[in-house]
Amino acid sequence: MANPVLVEVTRGTMVESRHRGMVVAVDSAGRIVFSAGAVDHLVFPRSACKAMQALPLVESGAADHYDFSARELALACSSHNGEPEHAELAGAMLARAGRSVEDLECGAHWSFQQETLINQVRTMDRPTALHNNCSGKHAGFVCTCAHTGEAVSGYVGYDHPLQREIRATMESLTGAALSQDVCGTDGCSIPTYAVPLQGLAHGFAKMATGEGLSPERAKAARRLIDACMAEPFYVAGTRRLCTEIMALAPGRIFAKTGAEGVFCAALPEQGIAIALKCEDGATRAAEAMVAATLARFLRDDEALHTALMAKANHTMRNWNGMAVGDVRVTEALTA
Amino acid sequence: MANPVLVEVTRGTMVESRHRGMVVAVDSAGRIVFSAGAVDHLVFPRSACKAMQALPLVESGAADHYDFSARELALACSSHNGEPEHAELAGAMLARAGRSVEDLECGAHWSFQQETLINQVRTMDRPTALHNNCSGKHAGFVCTCAHTGEAVSGYVGYDHPLQREIRATMESLTGAALSQDVCGTDGCSIPTYAVPLQGLAHGFAKMATGEGLSPERAKAARRLIDACMAEPFYVAGTRRLCTEIMALAPGRIFAKTGAEGVFCAALPEQGIAIALKCEDGATRAAEAMVAATLARFLRDDEALHTALMAKANHTMRNWNGMAVGDVRVTEALTA
Repeated sequence: MANPVLVEVTRGTMVESRHRGMVVAVDSAGRIVFSAGAVDHLVFPRSACKAMQALPLVESGAADHYDFSARELALACSSHNGEPEHAELAGAMLARAGRSVEDLECGAHWSFQQETLINQVRTMDRPTALHNNCSGKHAGFVCTCAHTGEAVSGYVGYDHPLQREIRATMESLTGAALSQDVCGTDGCSIPTYAVPLQGLAHGFAKMATGEGLSPERAKAARRLIDACMAEPFYVAGTRRLCTEIMALAPGRIFAKTGAEGVFCAALPEQGIAIALKCEDGATRAAEAMVAATLARFLRDDEALHTALMAKANHTMRNWNGMAVGDVRVTEALTA
Repeated sequence: MANPVLVEVTRGTMVESRHRGMVVAVDSAGRIVFSAGAVDHLVFPRSACKAMQALPLVESGAADHYDFSARELALACSSHNGEPEHAELAGAMLARAGRSVEDLECGAHWSFQQETLINQVRTMDRPTALHNNCSGKHAGFVCTCAHTGEAVSGYVGYDHPLQREIRATMESLTGAALSQDVCGTDGCSIPTYAVPLQGLAHGFAKMATGEGLSPERAKAARRLIDACMAEPFYVAGTRRLCTEIMALAPGRIFAKTGAEGVFCAALPEQGIAIALKCEDGATRAAEAMVAATLARFLRDDEALHTALMAKANHTMRNWNGMAVGDVRVTEALTA
């Protein structure tokens, strides 16, 4: 059966485009408290699981050894715009471990965010790996290896000890068996593993609440989630939904996007976590979905509910600033 | 019933994202020769129907009066990158009618094409309306009004005589009744009308073959289609599918993209035209769909068929140049 239409894009009085998807919200025990679409479907979390991938940085003691604050930990969990603050902090993290941009294996790209791209073009010949949206995560990887004594070179490989540890960590969090069978290569060259959407949500519920985790992992997980909520600019950047949503309710909402229409989120106070994927991979739709799904659980806070629904349903304007249509979520998310 | 999945995006050995859509190919009498999905669905053609919108430029005599060659006519039908050649030619068209960029009502935006955007940032403070992807169409509108004596100011309005004439032209070509009920505002501020996909394809079949048109309209339509096929760079630009597909078989393929996942195309030799929409509005999927659908009708030309299928099915690479997955069309298009 086809996944339901969760987001519509209108023009004039008509629906112009439709986005289908699957959404699941679970409690700290992994029980479904809301769902739409095929929530047992295998989904590549892509960058939405960066906080899981950052656990070895904390658990190995590297984060303490290099004296990383919330800002560095947020960057390790980020898909940032490549703004100057992001690139500089990634470089500073590497320097703490006596390493540099030369050690990053993520490749380089211009910013995906237009304002940032324009600023980059005006100030540099070409971007470096520090400007890659994953440079914070990779700086965290390099620092972890530098601290534990594992080889830094080749840290992106499937069989590298760090990637093995991340795989085991993700298996434990999501309850899914991960192997080459469900492995793809991410944009930044590390392995990415397809996991059931419900398991992904449960993993974030564990991270946000500590339930079902060892005391040490619970502490590390909460430290990473708290770091992202405390430093939302370092998780994404200017005009980015992750940053804006977390800034709406400091310390109460965690949200992280991934490529191809994935979003993970958590409400630590309520012990609820969310994972979703837009079937067609569209970011605009995944953003509307996560905002509306978070809003479901925040109806008691009218201002916050309204602010989140304004992210879910918003007017599109053309080059002359005329309102031409809306992005809006369907009843499948709001009813 | 849901539209079929026509394009899959893979990662590793798995399907990561799916694009649904509707495709119809018709002969010169409007009879369906191939279809997938809901082909009676109302679709905003957006920029895919610019060749229809350019008919008044030719039929009014303005194109001859201002001595426009194939290049100017192609630009009048274009969604261009805003490369220097595009902006300069749009300015030259306006100058022929004693007009300038000040008369354009389309608004300004940076190029959607990254290489062009980077070149723009390096050479200008900000883009003008000449760099808007629709500036050629708008220059054609201004020249039409200047020639016929209609007011240039306000030429984008629903009730302006030019827009009335375009509406009547599109009704005649598509067989659909167009009114405020199916009207939206396009990115460049002119009215856009939702029409049945099959009617849209039939309109392009008429334009490509002349069948069902008055001799005068048949001549004007073929002149525009021929101009696009003769000057494909001026229909889109560097690394753009419209340009690349038309350059594969000069004079044999017409193809034009529109926003939100629309494509129209024609094979004048065979009297066949195609209209399609990716349900979710994704350009990457609409591009794969149009290439594969054109290839269906070109199986006798092995080299051309192979070249088109290489546009439909292609490998995606990450920032390090590693192959990470494919965009590929499904059997719904190839069987």
